[in-house]
Amino acid sequence: MASTPSSPKEHHFVDIHPVLSDDNDNLNRLRDRQSSDATVNFRAAGDGKGRERRLQRNVWTFSRQIPLESGIGVFDVENKGSVEGESSGNAKGKSLGGVGATGGDADHRKGYFDMFRTKSAIGAKQNSLMPSWKENEPDPDNAEGVPGSAGADDRVNKSVPAGRYFAALRGPELDQVREYEDILLPKDEVWPFLLRFPVGCFGICLGLGSQAILWGALSSSPAMAFVRVSPNINLALWLLALAILVSVSVAYTLKCVFYFEAIRREYFHPVRVNFFFAPWIACMFLAIGVPPRWAPRHLHPAIWCAFIAPVFILELKVYGQWLSGGKRRLCKVANPSSHLSVVGNFVGAILAAKVGWGEAGKFLWAIGLAHYLCLFVTLYQRLTTSQALPKELHPVYSMFIATPSAASIAWHAIYGEFDAVSRTFYFIALFLYCSLVVRINFFRGFKFSVAWWSYTFPMTTASLAAIRYAEEVTCFFSKGLALSLSLMSSAIVSLMLVSTLLHAFVWRSLFPNDLAIAITKDRSDGAKAQDKEKKASKKNYDLKRWAKQSSLSLVSSIRRGHSGD
Amino acid sequence: MASTPSSPKEHHFVDIHPVLSDDNDNLNRLRDRQSSDATVNFRAAGDGKGRERRLQRNVWTFSRQIPLESGIGVFDVENKGSVEGESSGNAKGKSLGGVGATGGDADHRKGYFDMFRTKSAIGAKQNSLMPSWKENEPDPDNAEGVPGSAGADDRVNKSVPAGRYFAALRGPELDQVREYEDILLPKDEVWPFLLRFPVGCFGICLGLGSQAILWGALSSSPAMAFVRVSPNINLALWLLALAILVSVSVAYTLKCVFYFEAIRREYFHPVRVNFFFAPWIACMFLAIGVPPRWAPRHLHPAIWCAFIAPVFILELKVYGQWLSGGKRRLCKVANPSSHLSVVGNFVGAILAAKVGWGEAGKFLWAIGLAHYLCLFVTLYQRLTTSQALPKELHPVYSMFIATPSAASIAWHAIYGEFDAVSRTFYFIALFLYCSLVVRINFFRGFKFSVAWWSYTFPMTTASLAAIRYAEEVTCFFSKGLALSLSLMSSAIVSLMLVSTLLHAFVWRSLFPNDLAIAITKDRSDGAKAQDKEKKASKKNYDLKRWAKQSSLSLVSSIRRGHSGD
Amino acid sequence: MASTPSSPKEHHFVDIHPVLSDDNDNLNRLRDRQSSDATVNFRAAGDGKGRERRLQRNVWTFSRQIPLESGIGVFDVENKGSVEGESSGNAKGKSLGGVGATGGDADHRKGYFDMFRTKSAIGAKQNSLMPSWKENEPDPDNAEGVPGSAGADDRVNKSVPAGRYFAALRGPELDQVREYEDILLPKDEVWPFLLRFPVGCFGICLGLGSQAILWGALSSSPAMAFVRVSPNINLALWLLALAILVSVSVAYTLKCVFYFEAIRREYFHPVRVNFFFAPWIACMFLAIGVPPRWAPRHLHPAIWCAFIAPVFILELKVYGQWLSGGKRRLCKVANPSSHLSVVGNFVGAILAAKVGWGEAGKFLWAIGLAHYLCLFVTLYQRLTTSQALPKELHPVYSMFIATPSAASIAWHAIYGEFDAVSRTFYFIALFLYCSLVVRINFFRGFKFSVAWWSYTFPMTTASLAAIRYAEEVTCFFSKGLALSLSLMSSAIVSLMLVSTLLHAFVWRSLFPNDLAIAITKDRSDGAKAQDKEKKASKKNYDLKRWAKQSSLSLVSSIRRGHSGD
Repeated sequence: MASTPSSPKEHHFVDIHPVLSDDNDNLNRLRDRQSSDATVNFRAAGDGKGRERRLQRNVWTFSRQIPLESGIGVFDVENKGSVEGESSGNAKGKSLGGVGATGGDADHRKGYFDMFRTKSAIGAKQNSLMPSWKENEPDPDNAEGVPGSAGADDRVNKSVPAGRYFAALRGPELDQVREYEDILLPKDEVWPFLLRFPVGCFGICLGLGSQAILWGALSSSPAMAFVRVSPNINLALWLLALAILVSVSVAYTLKCVFYFEAIRREYFHPVRVNFFFAPWIACMFLAIGVPPRWAPRHLHPAIWCAFIAPVFILELKVYGQWLSGGKRRLCKVANPSSHLSVVGNFVGAILAAKVGWGEAGKFLWAIGLAHYLCLFVTLYQRLTTSQALPKELHPVYSMFIATPSAASIAWHAIYGEFDAVSRTFYFIALFLYCSLVVRINFFRGFKFSVAWWSYTFPMTTASLAAIRYAEEVTCFFSKGLALSLSLMSSAIVSLMLVSTLLHAFVWRSLFPNDLAIAITKDRSDGAKAQDKEKKASKKNYDLKRWAKQSSLSLVSSIRRGHSGD
Repeated sequence: MASTPSSPKEHHFVDIHPVLSDDNDNLNRLRDRQSSDATVNFRAAGDGKGRERRLQRNVWTFSRQIPLESGIGVFDVENKGSVEGESSGNAKGKSLGGVGATGGDADHRKGYFDMFRTKSAIGAKQNSLMPSWKENEPDPDNAEGVPGSAGADDRVNKSVPAGRYFAALRGPELDQVREYEDILLPKDEVWPFLLRFPVGCFGICLGLGSQAILWGALSSSPAMAFVRVSPNINLALWLLALAILVSVSVAYTLKCVFYFEAIRREYFHPVRVNFFFAPWIACMFLAIGVPPRWAPRHLHPAIWCAFIAPVFILELKVYGQWLSGGKRRLCKVANPSSHLSVVGNFVGAILAAKVGWGEAGKFLWAIGLAHYLCLFVTLYQRLTTSQALPKELHPVYSMFIATPSAASIAWHAIYGEFDAVSRTFYFIALFLYCSLVVRINFFRGFKFSVAWWSYTFPMTTASLAAIRYAEEVTCFFSKGLALSLSLMSSAIVSLMLVSTLLHAFVWRSLFPNDLAIAITKDRSDGAKAQDKEKKASKKNYDLKRWAKQSSLSLVSSIRRGHSGD
Repeated sequence: MASTPSSPKEHHFVDIHPVLSDDNDNLNRLRDRQSSDATVNFRAAGDGKGRERRLQRNVWTFSRQIPLESGIGVFDVENKGSVEGESSGNAKGKSLGGVGATGGDADHRKGYFDMFRTKSAIGAKQNSLMPSWKENEPDPDNAEGVPGSAGADDRVNKSVPAGRYFAALRGPELDQVREYEDILLPKDEVWPFLLRFPVGCFGICLGLGSQAILWGALSSSPAMAFVRVSPNINLALWLLALAILVSVSVAYTLKCVFYFEAIRREYFHPVRVNFFFAPWIACMFLAIGVPPRWAPRHLHPAIWCAFIAPVFILELKVYGQWLSGGKRRLCKVANPSSHLSVVGNFVGAILAAKVGWGEAGKFLWAIGLAHYLCLFVTLYQRLTTSQALPKELHPVYSMFIATPSAASIAWHAIYGEFDAVSRTFYFIALFLYCSLVVRINFFRGFKFSVAWWSYTFPMTTASLAAIRYAEEVTCFFSKGLALSLSLMSSAIVSLMLVSTLLHAFVWRSLFPNDLAIAITKDRSDGAKAQDKEKKASKKNYDLKRWAKQSSLSLVSSIRRGHSGD
């Protein structure tokens, strides 16, 4: 079983003191109880540090290959690093893993994740279980006169301030937890599938949906007639995109039903919030790229209304946050993925033109322009206040291409001509494309993540703009450019597809634990926070676990006594 | 009478020491002399602090209901809070108020405000009186060997650095003095009407002038013919706006004549300076909205020249300050009211089109665009360096709507068509309107001020742009939007009118003391600054006051001696 | 001879301790050896400080009148300040100057500048000389067990980080070394001509090339026919501009061949890097302004390709640096001379229109627009993070005019009409022109430098735009404006020409030592850095110098012994 109750965590600032065995026994007992709690952050004070260090060494050896098909899976603990000296702790960890692999442990492990559950579900559970728990188990911590009751709920359910995300996370997508940070869920366990399913998965739909449009344009555009692309490719891609959109939507809806708190945390995440635009943009892509044989002359405006409404509401929210100060002001949160919140306007404008509502398209285009301007300048300045901006170039920078390309296509769609404005935006996109391509070596060395799919659609959009341009200026160079851009974007999407399939079915590492949603609400530094966590961690768990836990703790203390000598 | 020579001021960091009566006597004598001086900031050192605290308690009970019709008025000192214990100081304050209500005290009270007088007037006064004063009254402070002569003049007349305004003031309009700050004029007295008459009053003219244009457009626009608005409304509003503009201008001209130093301080105020554009914009509004029956086909270009010249000169000054660094650089002073400095260009462009000088209008439009761009991006970024930006949303944010609306109308006026550019700006304004309307609850809970009038004209401008758009795109939706925006702006202007009348004639609190102009030039912290102030405060006052003062001081010390025991 | 081997440098934080003669002797010996090394930064520790101070006094009396015609020249050491007390050090300095004026000293002086030589040259030299040097001269510093071998090369050849430039330099062009900074080359010596020849000299070509275009436009534009300008002026100016471009290019090519490291340092200089656009813009100016009698109807596109390619590559580099973070991000390096990196696009667009490649011109125009927008907003905001922005206005601010003017002309050229876009840009340029002209007194009091030439072409560009506008709107005012702007720009160019000739041939101060390229890579503060420098300074020098140096040192120590008493 995946759960290793000794739960070796990453601890820093450790030093090597002589380890006394009795101290370690006490510590161990405490740890065993703790690790089965929801809390993970435990900092051994004083003499236990040598022990800590040993455990830390072990944690690095856990394989990151996390199974896809189930939340539980086989967790492979490779204790390579624990051969020197005091390997007893490790041995215990293993044995406990064995002991814990009973049926009862699945229940207790599940407890970890309850805090991210939709509140109504938790409420129901708590109402039924809490009284009995309180009667049967006198909580030693609460007995000390500290209330500490609403802790865990508070920790999760209150919105995490933006500053916390910046403080606790790092990386261009703010998806990696800083070393010194504790998280609410166990790092060494495979979380439930839905908890590991990020909103970034809609990026796959963006990538495939835009490809469907691209191949539709390649097959229908008079300028690209010379390549004789079959419209069936468009059809196949569109169906694939639709299928994936449906599956991702279903999965995310399930997450919404079961783990609404996790979704709230994704929503408050300064980078992730932009990905909430992705589903609607993907829908609009599908509506724009609907195969000609099924498409009516004009789509019904209701389609546009249905897809643009959430985008518009999100925009009012996000742009309002930019403007109204606080931690989410533009000069702090601006990052390349913010382009996703702008590009929706232009895609909406294209769809508006397609359903015949030109004025609505112009409205969206104007909104898009105003905010693109702010975002473009802000990103180009790379203000030092911007905490979300990656230090180095990263695939996310391809987002820079998306917005001007989409603006170009949208202008063409709503005003009916590829005039100076369209060209200006297209050429800006082209220059940014060049600018990123010549820095291609900056992009290497990053770990694949499913969010990368979102970074493919900008190239596709640029290709589409190039095709529109080639229609307007039909010369060898423009056609060649359109074709090569199209091929490049298709090649990259194919590469992504293969990578994704490999990660999903071969390496089974497509959905690693989504650490970014499990950060603690406050930086728990020092003993104060630790105590608070300890007290708060005594909730939401049923009696059985406690009973079992005690026995586990006993077992571990016995083993510890043996090995500590 | 209003003047209370004991002048209890707000002091902070006081602590309660035992108060010795003789110390207090000395202190009191000093205070009495001081309070009749121009200086107000007095920090009692050492033993007098208990006394201070008592006085402070009293100041909170002064009513803020300040009479409108006269600068002197009946000031109602409600000494509710001074019943416990040592109420003698307060009694003295009252009695002195009674004593001071002789004809001579009006002179001495006037002395407070002399420092804001136009210099020539002061100069004349000084020339005649200073020699005699110097002969007759040996100044004890100056006798200590400190020159300290040009102090008061310096304090007021030298321009206050921008940093001081940011440091000493707060609030979205930088109109409230921070608690720990002293000001040059007595807070508990009603200042002369002209000193309380801020430049923001021209906002009333902006609001009414734009309403006149709006109702003119409603009555004449073919798109809005279905509502059948009588042109007489336009006429009536225009006359009202004209009347108010004339009265406000007369009042402000008087302020300019008598209290030029106060106007200089308003000019150096980082937020207020933008309101110096308001009179000229209001004039241009009147010129644009002149009722058709009186209007010639084309207004004479001289009108445009007369109104745009001050705007242009101010712009050279203000934009130059943005660019040339220092404390008034854009990233520091940018705030929503800065839009007033940009919108003038677009209004000027509209008027230029009306007088037939299209190219001049295009020139203004270009200036406006360039600076609008900078301002828009800067405000949207909410740079952390911007000290003038309100923390929360505030009615001043409606300014965001004004500039794109005006840009849209202006483009239509000068280029003759409501094309993509016009639409883009109109739609940007519309989105910002939505964005602010959905945050309407942010706007509640603010104290009414006359500056709010300035925040009504953006809505009117948006309504005008909506009417222009409805002329171009005549459909049910666009007409409905134009009508509802017009009604909303009219409703708000009516509300403002009622509020203003109530504040002016019922509550008599339309013009509270304009604290923002009376901040000290330097943060007077510690004894050093106090000494400096003490020495600087011995100027500009005539002999009679001094003689009287001595007797007053004697009276007070006698009374003090009685009550202190 | 110019070289003064005792090399008095500016030292700070010196205090006056009693100077012991034997200590001084040792110090002196050390100094003499050191001063002939490449390193200049020497901080005497301990007892030698009094000595230091004396030397410092002397350095201020060196005349700044540096001869143009040769790198060596007559250097006038005016030892006015060294009469009191211990003038022996100075006497020695003089005498050593005399001793050093042998043929051998030219060699050793040359050693200073070897570090900026092209590496292949140094490499060849080192290969031949280093072994013998190593055999013959046991290095006392290296004997102490410190490797310290690759120091000097590292110091120079590794790119200096942008932060260092900001830290070590000041002034609006970052061309003055801060007082507390040491530099690698002797300040009191005239450096070789090529080392003193900055990239800013291409500004002369910009100024003259744009004048040629202007006078061509004046002679050929129908709107300006009333002034009847002879086309010969254009011809003469064009030939002059061509001649100067050729000479400057030859000189800079020589610098490139001989002192490539100096060019690298100019390239990494945050302000200077923008001047690397100047040669290509100057070439494009010449291509645009080619006299009509020689010009074919359409230039060959190859010309455009040849001139735009380096601009494009530089842009990819520079804009990439803006975007990709680090010390060269836009919010840090933005300064008015950054306009040079944008204006190239617009000039390239004009040339593209002239060679008939309209679409390429539109591409460049779009790139220019996007980056102009970012730059304009950033400069207008005057972000506090921008370290390169001059505190006060400076001639460099005229750059603000260049870009919108060029954008206006370019739009007219590529889209064939002076429409709203052209006008908007033209009017923006006009307003900025006004805005700077009214602040003309800010521009006084600056030392002339050859970089000022770059600041003349913006006015010429504005004049050209005014002529284009006068062609479109032919009225008295527009023609008058075009004429007066043209005359003003010509007047300023004439003034510059006279100044330059005076500086070059009369005052012989056109090319002072280019201190900005000689800053040390690290702030050498304290003894650590000093030691490092000391050790690093033992390289790149040939044997003969060392031998001579020992004798010189001996001489100086003898003299010192005499005078120290």
